[in-house]
This record gives sequence, structure tokens and C-alpha cells, in this order.
Amino acid sequence: MERALKGDFVAIGKLISVLEKEGEERRELLKEIAPLVGKAYYIGITGAPGVGKSTLVDKMVGFLRGEGYKVGVIAIDPSSPFSGGAFLGDRLRMQRHATDPGVFIRSMGSRGALGGLSKAAPYVAKLLDACGFDFIILETVGAGQSEVDIVKTADTVIIVLVPGMGDEVQIIKAGIMEIGDIFVVNKSDKEGAQKLTRELETWIELGYKGASWVPPVLMTIAENGTGVDKLINALKGHRKYLLESGELEKRRRKRIAEEISKAVEDMLKERIVKNLNKEQMNLYVDLVLNGKRDPYSIAEELVNNLY
Amino acid sequence: MERALKGDFVAIGKLISVLEKEGEERRELLKEIAPLVGKAYYIGITGAPGVGKSTLVDKMVGFLRGEGYKVGVIAIDPSSPFSGGAFLGDRLRMQRHATDPGVFIRSMGSRGALGGLSKAAPYVAKLLDACGFDFIILETVGAGQSEVDIVKTADTVIIVLVPGMGDEVQIIKAGIMEIGDIFVVNKSDKEGAQKLTRELETWIELGYKGASWVPPVLMTIAENGTGVDKLINALKGHRKYLLESGELEKRRRKRIAEEISKAVEDMLKERIVKNLNKEQMNLYVDLVLNGKRDPYSIAEELVNNLY
Repeated sequence: MERALKGDFVAIGKLISVLEKEGEERRELLKEIAPLVGKAYYIGITGAPGVGKSTLVDKMVGFLRGEGYKVGVIAIDPSSPFSGGAFLGDRLRMQRHATDPGVFIRSMGSRGALGGLSKAAPYVAKLLDACGFDFIILETVGAGQSEVDIVKTADTVIIVLVPGMGDEVQIIKAGIMEIGDIFVVNKSDKEGAQKLTRELETWIELGYKGASWVPPVLMTIAENGTGVDKLINALKGHRKYLLESGELEKRRRKRIAEEISKAVEDMLKERIVKNLNKEQMNLYVDLVLNGKRDPYSIAEELVNNLY
Repeated sequence: MERALKGDFVAIGKLISVLEKEGEERRELLKEIAPLVGKAYYIGITGAPGVGKSTLVDKMVGFLRGEGYKVGVIAIDPSSPFSGGAFLGDRLRMQRHATDPGVFIRSMGSRGALGGLSKAAPYVAKLLDACGFDFIILETVGAGQSEVDIVKTADTVIIVLVPGMGDEVQIIKAGIMEIGDIFVVNKSDKEGAQKLTRELETWIELGYKGASWVPPVLMTIAENGTGVDKLINALKGHRKYLLESGELEKRRRKRIAEEISKAVEDMLKERIVKNLNKEQMNLYVDLVLNGKRDPYSIAEELVNNLY
């Protein structure tokens, strides 16, 4: 921990391994980290595979580094079932920051454990926060409740779209649009970029009438860096708004409350599983299977027995 | 309920509305339904938007109707944030069964409540089961944990892919491939269909060595019905396998056990949320915000106070 706080990447990596495994050790580490967090600014960036998130993040990191900020990146990778691994191409692109002690990049696979690993992402973010990174970028494809949950822990949420992909494919997950603070139309030199931008603006106009923050829609070409400066400006503008309106504290309070609830839920689940022996469960299943009882009355009974 | 059991669609629709809302009324209805379920065969069908799921389901329904079976379809629609509604085109295509009393189709939006509505899908399936439908088809885009959970309640899971979409876009959700019992390469007249089929077969060969059920890969052109007969055969083959191997009962037992655990979890959560007043939570949030405590030790305290 001491070494991690001094910026030792190997030590940070080892602590991340601790955070990835459920249990007492993780809980202890999180307790240690708790008093040290709250200084970093959290950015969530999401969009379908192929919209150019990683390239955009790469350019944002370059920009923020130019201003002297330390940046941590946590990328949740949906790995291909065929190729097995994460999108190496994207990861490799980030390698130009690999020797920079002011940039920590962690790629986490979401495959196999049904998002199990990626559940640790918010904990890793906290660790990087504690270790003195100024900006923490959480990058996900935004599919799946657990990923939406991760993005929601950010102070500013950036949603990236590209023209020509069809909005139903891009915004596959219900509710993802509603959490965007900034919208980016990347690959804006491609056909349909103007149309997509206008559609987004119309949608925002209708949905955010009278709102204190109206999400801007920005056009970028991440590949050559076009528009990244404007994106950073929009980001800072949103941060300023959050700070001045008191919304930042409100968001963070909400986040903490959710963390507490989530932890309570996890612990209860653990205890219930431990308390319920297999034989007993088998008897209950028999009753349901034979139409003699239903799962809900059984659940009621179990809960009542707990107290 | 009486009218619903006789096949009155209006009555079924009204009961579905009850199932969509959490609370005592739903619990009571589920208790009533419980002894009547277990006769229907549940089919889950999943794949990215645009792979032709609805057309395929439409053709499957036609086929099963031809054999005299009653079929219920529950489609979880990811609605477009721009157009507002569900994919009407797909739904309209199903309208040819609209006047058939042996086909009940229910489209449920997944937007807004972050999958809230779609959580009722397994309950609706049970209702249709109780009402005497022989096959119940659950159709989802397979994004999001809640959707994967729905598909997992099926006896047979069909995963639909199309050539040329890129597997990273199609199988965006981790873990979805692993639950497939039958794979379908739809739009198999398009370029790349052979290649995709071979890739899938290789992936299955590697992963299912020595397994008692090796998922077949079928090519279909849903638009003109090509291969739908083979799909139905594969479906029946899988059902036969499940029945003869005892796997069907095992799956259903597991499903019931999960239902009980889930119901216990929901009830406990409800109680904790009810027990925890806002003021108390605010105090806890203050402590975390000031770095004096961490969410995990607070959660431990709350859980310990329950018993």
C-alpha cells in the first residue's frame, strides 16, 4: 500500500489483484483506501464496440497529460468468444503511454464470469483515486446492467456514437442514453454524421427542456485528434457546472448511498446462501415442482425465519 | 383468472398488468399460478438487433401452429431512444398471427426503467404456461444481465447470429455464448455465412469435447423460411435429450432454486430499505464523504443489526 501510494505501478497491480477477489482481504483493503479517496475526477465513457472509444480515450489522455494531470484508465473489454482475448488492437494503441509514470492503464475482461471481473472496476477506480491520479477514465461498451452501473459511478458520462451504425445497435442497452452528460459523434467525417448530430440534438432538446445541464453534442475524429480539445473543454465545463451547482456533492452522496446498499445486498446474499443447506432447498424445490407450493411463499417463510 | 385459463386474451392481458407491478397483488397471483405451471416448453431466443430474430420467431410460430401447438411469444424490445417505441416493423410482421387464438404475443419494452418491465417476463411466461400454451418463446437482444437471466429460464436457448456483423458487436454481452443449446446463422445467403458457421463449429468443437449435448449450428434464411424445419427438428432433438437424460428436471429444479433465492433477496432488500430511514443514511454518507468510515463496514453493521 505504501509503495502504491508512492506511484509504484507493480504495487498498484498487486493491490488490484486483491480487489478482484471477493472476500475479507478485499474488504480490509477497501477500508484502508476509504479515507484517501475523493480527490480524483471520474469520467465514464461508453459506446458500442467499433465507435472508437479507445482512440478517443488515448487522445484525451494525451491532452490531459499535456496539462500535467495524472490519468488512470480502466477499460472493461468485452472479449470476443472466438479470439478469446480482449481487443488487442485497441489496447496496443494505448501503449504509447506505457512508459509514462503519469498514466496507469488497466484492461479488465468482462467475459466468462458474466461481468464478474468488471465488478471490481469501481474498487480499482478508488485505488487509483487514493494513489493520486487526477482523472480516472472508466471505459465500457455500455452493455449490461453491471456496465451501466460502472459508468454511473462517474462524475461525467460521455456517450460516443458513430454515423452509419444504426442507433438500435449502438444503444443496445436500455437507459444508457439517459445517463449521458456529453455526447460525442465520432468519425464525424463519415456520411451521416450531421444527421446523427441533429437527431441527438433534437432528442436532447425535447428531453432536457429547462434542465440546468443540457448535454452538448460534439463532433470528433479521434483518429487524427480533431475535436478532442473541444471535448476536454466540455468536460471541464461540466465539472464546473457540477461543482457550482452543488450537483457534484449530490452525485457523490448518491453514489456512496448506493455503495452501502449494494454492499448490504452482497452480504445478505452471502449469508442466505450459507444459511440454506442443500437438503432443505431440495425439499422446497420438490414442493414447487409438484405444484404444492410457490417460490414466493417459501421466500416469505425463509425471510421470516431469519429474524 | 378463470377467464384467462379459458383462453380469453383480454383477461390474460389484464393479469399481465398485475404481474408487471411489484407488490402484494403480484405475489398473490403468482401463488395462484404456481400449481398450474410446468407443462409448457420454454424456448429462449437471443441475438443482436438486426439478426432477424422476430422473423425467425414468426416462422417458428407458423410451423408449430401447423402442428397444432399453442404458442406464446414474449418479446423484450430494446426501444430506440430516437423513435421512442419498440421496433414496430418487427412487431408488425408478427401481426399475421394476431387473429389466431392459438398464438399470444406480448411485446415488453426494456427502456426507461433499466430493464424494469422486462423483469416481469418470467412471470408472464408462467402465466401463459398456466393458460395452456404448449410452447413459450422468450425473445431478447441478449444485452444486459437481466436479459441473460430471462433467457436462462428457458429449456432450450437458441442464439442467432448473422454474417458480416462482426462477432464483437453481436456477442456484446459476456457469457451469452456459453448458454446456447442451438446456434443459428441466419441470413445464410449472405457473404461470410459459411465462414461464421465454421468458426462457430470450431469454437463448439473445442469447448464441448465429450459433452452430452453438443450444440448444432444451423443455417437459416428466416425471410423465406429456409431451414426453419431443421431448426424445429433441432429444438425437438434438444427437448428429447433433456427429457431422456434427466437434464430437463435438473434445469427446472435449478431454476426454481434460483427463483426462491431471488425472491428472498428481493424481500430482504425491501426490508432493509424500509428499515433505513433517510436521516440515518445521510449520516452514514457524511461519514464516508469525510473519510471517517467506509461503505463496507457500514454495510456489515446494518446486516448485523438485522438479526
